[in-house]
Amino acid sequence: MAPITAAIERHTIAVVVDNEPGVLARVIGLFSGRGYNIESLTVAEVERSTSLSRLVPVHTVKDLTEDGPHVERELALIKVAGTGERRIEALRLAEIFRARVVDSTISSFVFEVTGSSEKLDAFIELVAPIGLVELARTGIAAMSRGTGQL
Amino acid sequence: MAPITAAIERHTIAVVVDNEPGVLARVIGLFSGRGYNIESLTVAEVERSTSLSRLVPVHTVKDLTEDGPHVERELALIKVAGTGERRIEALRLAEIFRARVVDSTISSFVFEVTGSSEKLDAFIELVAPIGLVELARTGIAAMSRGTGQL
Repeated sequence: MAPITAAIERHTIAVVVDNEPGVLARVIGLFSGRGYNIESLTVAEVERSTSLSRLVPVHTVKDLTEDGPHVERELALIKVAGTGERRIEALRLAEIFRARVVDSTISSFVFEVTGSSEKLDAFIELVAPIGLVELARTGIAAMSRGTGQL
Repeated sequence: MAPITAAIERHTIAVVVDNEPGVLARVIGLFSGRGYNIESLTVAEVERSTSLSRLVPVHTVKDLTEDGPHVERELALIKVAGTGERRIEALRLAEIFRARVVDSTISSFVFEVTGSSEKLDAFIELVAPIGLVELARTGIAAMSRGTGQL
């Protein structure tokens, strides 16, 4: 909830580490200890064999922001409450943004929307006045374009 | 990359905290310090006003696994390389799983797929033999069903 200004430089960094106790806390500590704000973070298992003999659990680090073209995608779940015309307007906006309805009651929807963070921001801004109840975002998953590997 | 067995009990926990330096590291430390493995983690800004006067930056904690019906969604970017029949098979599987092509070269695709973690696992398992190059997952975004708020 910190104010975001144009002066802030954003980087998307991909790090592959061994899944060992404490590694996550150490990686986060390296960034926050230097005063960098972690605006979003995603952690998940990927299919790589573990190097049991490694002393340093970090496999690769890549600053995608500086390493050529890449894809960034985020997912948001957005709960919107409203009836009548407000409900119809929510569905209209969902169609424009290709959001999917993943839960529905007679007076509310949960939408799933994916895309760039900017696209998600735009959709959230438009549905907020209709009746935004709750929001959950995953943070960014990123990958270089083309055939190469991180 | 730790082996997962049926004996492991999984919980999805949603925590709303103030966006202050060090809060993330503290929350993670509370879990890992008690020996809980964080299998996936998502962090993102949501639209709530900050309580500047709060001494404890944690607003709410909810164990969604134990609190009735909820929606869980994850996003994965999956790079698959292959030509000829393998390429066609990748597109076939993408259609079945409603995956979207977000990048394409003559010998590779990047697919975006969303759904439960189990659905993502199933898709990844099927495309892996075709030529899985790289995988990025966001971890889970979760929300209670119905009109209520966390």
